[in-house]
Amino acid sequence: MTTSSSSYVFGPYKIDPREVFYTTPFSYAMVNLRPLLPAHVLVCPKRLVPRFTDLTADETSDLWLTAQKVGSRLETFHNATSLTLAIQDGPQAGQTVPHVHIHIMPRKGGDFEKNDEIYDALDEKEKELKQKLDLDKDRVDRSIEEMANEASQYRSLLDQ
Amino acid sequence: MTTSSSSYVFGPYKIDPREVFYTTPFSYAMVNLRPLLPAHVLVCPKRLVPRFTDLTADETSDLWLTAQKVGSRLETFHNATSLTLAIQDGPQAGQTVPHVHIHIMPRKGGDFEKNDEIYDALDEKEKELKQKLDLDKDRVDRSIEEMANEASQYRSLLDQ
Repeated sequence: MTTSSSSYVFGPYKIDPREVFYTTPFSYAMVNLRPLLPAHVLVCPKRLVPRFTDLTADETSDLWLTAQKVGSRLETFHNATSLTLAIQDGPQAGQTVPHVHIHIMPRKGGDFEKNDEIYDALDEKEKELKQKLDLDKDRVDRSIEEMANEASQYRSLLDQ
Repeated sequence: MTTSSSSYVFGPYKIDPREVFYTTPFSYAMVNLRPLLPAHVLVCPKRLVPRFTDLTADETSDLWLTAQKVGSRLETFHNATSLTLAIQDGPQAGQTVPHVHIHIMPRKGGDFEKNDEIYDALDEKEKELKQKLDLDKDRVDRSIEEMANEASQYRSLLDQ
C-alpha cells in the first residue's frame, strides 16, 4: 500500500505522511511521537471532528474496524497478549487535542506494575503530545526517521 | 421499546433483563451493579466473545454505533460535558470478565481530582464486579429495583 502524500490533520496540527502507516476511506493510523509502550499508536478519523458523537455512522464503523485490525496486527507483532483501547472524548475526559483519536496499546504481563497505571501515564503523555505539537522546535526526542522507520514496518504488517 | 425477556449473557454470568436498557440486533447496554459515576454503563455484544478481534465486522460496527448513541444520550441526560470510552481487551489490559464490554462514563469537571484517576477506580470496580457476580448472595449493595429503575429511565431516553 502506498500512503498518499496528502497531509493529515490532527486537530490544529499537520501530520507528516511518513508517520502514517495505514489509511482507509475515512480513517488513518499513525505512530506516536512519544509512545508510552512499544506500538502505542493512534487511530483518527480523516475529518477533523472533536467529539465521537460528531462522526457519521460510516466514519464510526470505519474507525473501529481500523482500530480492530491495527490492534490485532500490532498485538501479534509485539508478542503482546492484550490491548488497551480508549477514547478520551472531550476535555473533561482528558482529551487535549480536539480531534477524535483512539489510543491503542498492546499489553503484556508486567508492562506496568499495576495494569491500570497505564492510564495515568497515558494522560501525562497526552499532555506532553500537545506541548510537543505546539512547540515544533522541541520535536527532537524522537526523530522523523525513527518514526518513519516504525511506520514503514507497520505498513508492511497491515498490508498482509 | 420493550426489552426482550430473553436473558443476556455476560461472560459466564446471566444478566437480568431488567438491568438492560437498550438492545440492537448484535448488542445490548446495561446499567452497572456498582457504577463508578452516575450513568457508568456497559455496552456488550450479545454473542459471548472474549476479545475485540473476535467480533465480526457487523458486530463491531453495531457495538460502537450503540456506544455512540448511548454515550451521547447519557452525557446530555446527566449534564456532563465529556465521555470516557474504554475497552480493557484481555487480562493484561485489566479485563476480568472474559466478554467484550465497553465502559462508558459521562464526565464533568471536577468529578475526579485528576481526570485520569477514574481509570484506577475503573480497574478496582472491574475486580469488584467480578467478585460480586461470582458471589450472588453478596449482590445487596445495589438492589435489582434500583437498577431496574435506572434502566427504565434510560430505556425511555434511548427511545427518543
